[in-house]
Amino acid sequence: MNRQTLVASIREKKSFLCVGLDPDLEKMPEHLLAAEDPIFEFNKGIIDATRPFAVAYKPNVAFYESQGVKGWQALEKTVNYIGKDHFTIADAKRGDIGNTSRMYAKAFFEKMPFDAVTIAPYMGADSVEPFLEFDGKWAILLALTSNKGATDFQLNTQLESGEKLYETVLRTASKWGNRENLMFVVGATRPEYLKQVRQLAPDNFLLVPGIGAQGGSLESVAEFGLTKDIGLLVNSARGIIYASGGEDYAEAAGQAASKIADAMKAILSRNH
Amino acid sequence: MNRQTLVASIREKKSFLCVGLDPDLEKMPEHLLAAEDPIFEFNKGIIDATRPFAVAYKPNVAFYESQGVKGWQALEKTVNYIGKDHFTIADAKRGDIGNTSRMYAKAFFEKMPFDAVTIAPYMGADSVEPFLEFDGKWAILLALTSNKGATDFQLNTQLESGEKLYETVLRTASKWGNRENLMFVVGATRPEYLKQVRQLAPDNFLLVPGIGAQGGSLESVAEFGLTKDIGLLVNSARGIIYASGGEDYAEAAGQAASKIADAMKAILSRNH
Repeated sequence: MNRQTLVASIREKKSFLCVGLDPDLEKMPEHLLAAEDPIFEFNKGIIDATRPFAVAYKPNVAFYESQGVKGWQALEKTVNYIGKDHFTIADAKRGDIGNTSRMYAKAFFEKMPFDAVTIAPYMGADSVEPFLEFDGKWAILLALTSNKGATDFQLNTQLESGEKLYETVLRTASKWGNRENLMFVVGATRPEYLKQVRQLAPDNFLLVPGIGAQGGSLESVAEFGLTKDIGLLVNSARGIIYASGGEDYAEAAGQAASKIADAMKAILSRNH
Repeated sequence: MNRQTLVASIREKKSFLCVGLDPDLEKMPEHLLAAEDPIFEFNKGIIDATRPFAVAYKPNVAFYESQGVKGWQALEKTVNYIGKDHFTIADAKRGDIGNTSRMYAKAFFEKMPFDAVTIAPYMGADSVEPFLEFDGKWAILLALTSNKGATDFQLNTQLESGEKLYETVLRTASKWGNRENLMFVVGATRPEYLKQVRQLAPDNFLLVPGIGAQGGSLESVAEFGLTKDIGLLVNSARGIIYASGGEDYAEAAGQAASKIADAMKAILSRNH
């Protein structure tokens, strides 16, 4: 999905919600565990209930890999089930030397029909570029993550130039791609940095995890992150997919997603 | 496999060779492509021919993932076929927020019997720690990689403290683990930095890719990297697994591995 279609989809739905599909067998409703493919059954319920409120879905690949071959099958079925009307992100945090990163790009862009893959920046340009070469596909580079460990290198590493590491990553990587093929991950748990992020990446879409269970605020994210083309995909996983642990989990997920979408609609009507 | 067993295995074989299992359907011998599982058939041939000369095997997960579910099946079969007498490394370069990294650790340490996984450091402590909590298992953290992009952040990011980023990663991460559960990746293409690496990580094993096709020298790596417990696993992939593209590929791989093992034996006899 290209930028124009993504922006149009957000404007039409008045939502920039991305639903995180992180299925954990220990947390999902018991009645699903007897299914032949519990992960896919769970996802189907969530997807059906949240389609009207979401513009994107983001399976975190770790939850599938931890189930081995069966998990990988469930991931393939899930991305195919989502279809082409929603933006799909493989939250894989991959990255390797150039010829090997190309293999990862093939895995998610050719073997599977994902629109985007999250990428770790540590190995530099040649680890990211293979993901930028697919027409209509996206690399989403980690810049400032939502977890506690973000302080270790991204924030506490003060550079001679006066920048922090995450700022150097934003500034350097902005030259590798453009607003049509490169997004950045910026955690909602650190909205105070979004202003600075927007100085360095004024026009790129940001994928923002961390509202809900991790404590980030949608209002703060929107205040500092919105652009004239919206420029935000805000992800919620646990707050939606585990809204209920019972047989009504899908209905509860739909309600939780609808609530966030309502808040987004209010924000967009004030700002656009 | 714990440190004691790994060191004993190296001393017994007089080799610290790790064979990189990076099977590429476009490069492997044509006669294998008709097999039901060409990747596994290819790997079996390589493993059988190189067992006496190698102490470790390192499948790079990207080459398997790019083949989807079938590739994942081939990876599982490969690590099981290698067995318990060789150290096994999933070169996956994973890393995510704490509870998600735990899922990756489960994927490689519980669903599959790998001894070690390579990890990217960008997300900090909580992204690495879940891999350190499994008894007898290892996290191998990227410090200074062998690719061109290593200059972008690892080397060219000069910190206020006077350190380069890779040095900060080594110094900081050394506190998260110890010599029994934490190794570092340091590319053979930059042996001039190994001296400094050994200042910061005097006793950790280093996984060193980049000899052979990438141009690194075994002699230089050994000169600056060896410790009293050897402390090195030197990886070669393309130089061994594609030594021949014909039906004699396994025999040729065995010869290429034997040649490197001979060089290692000579180095160890001079130094230990």
